[in-house]
Amino acid sequence: MTRTPDDPRLELLQGTLDMLVLRTLQWGPRHGHGIGQAIRRQSEELLKVETGSLYPALHRLVKRGWLKSEWGVSEANQRAKFYRLTPAGRAQLIREQDRWSQLVRAIGRIMNPAPAAEE
Amino acid sequence: MTRTPDDPRLELLQGTLDMLVLRTLQWGPRHGHGIGQAIRRQSEELLKVETGSLYPALHRLVKRGWLKSEWGVSEANQRAKFYRLTPAGRAQLIREQDRWSQLVRAIGRIMNPAPAAEE
Repeated sequence: MTRTPDDPRLELLQGTLDMLVLRTLQWGPRHGHGIGQAIRRQSEELLKVETGSLYPALHRLVKRGWLKSEWGVSEANQRAKFYRLTPAGRAQLIREQDRWSQLVRAIGRIMNPAPAAEE
Repeated sequence: MTRTPDDPRLELLQGTLDMLVLRTLQWGPRHGHGIGQAIRRQSEELLKVETGSLYPALHRLVKRGWLKSEWGVSEANQRAKFYRLTPAGRAQLIREQDRWSQLVRAIGRIMNPAPAAEE
């Protein structure tokens, strides 16, 4: 992750991008550009996915068997690679979701400890 | 961040370590080893900080003026470098906390969208 303090949008934390891509495809197959747009819109423009991060992530997810890709035609009538979630990808999404919730809770315990734990 | 799926403890996401270090020092000055221990204990053993990540982070935070370090004597009666938060570090902690909350909310909008936003 690179910090861009001047840019109000947040760079995606490394390790959460895969989860967001898998989640986005739960709503149906999409092409790469559509996945990036879905993440941006759904997060109310807070998260942006750089092309340079998105395409390597898609490639990695296909290689692991979590996504399948096939050529199709986009809404702009252009040839594009569409990605869809595989059953293994759905199982992976559940694991990533658990991991993320666990991380958020663990960090929460440090950032907002129970009053008794504070000095 | 490296993934260690066999290890139940979570590797710290890049970018959150600085925030956790600053937060830990809000409870008072500590030496490096004590900071790592505080993060581990406070997160109920879920977060571990590798020495190879912690010391570069401390060095970076001192360089940016967010921490000051000074030599002292540890509870084990050993000479150790103690770190404390500077006023600039306190301000930075607030910024990092805001950023983290914003990120968690943005990811939450994708992972758990309002029912109407789902297909």
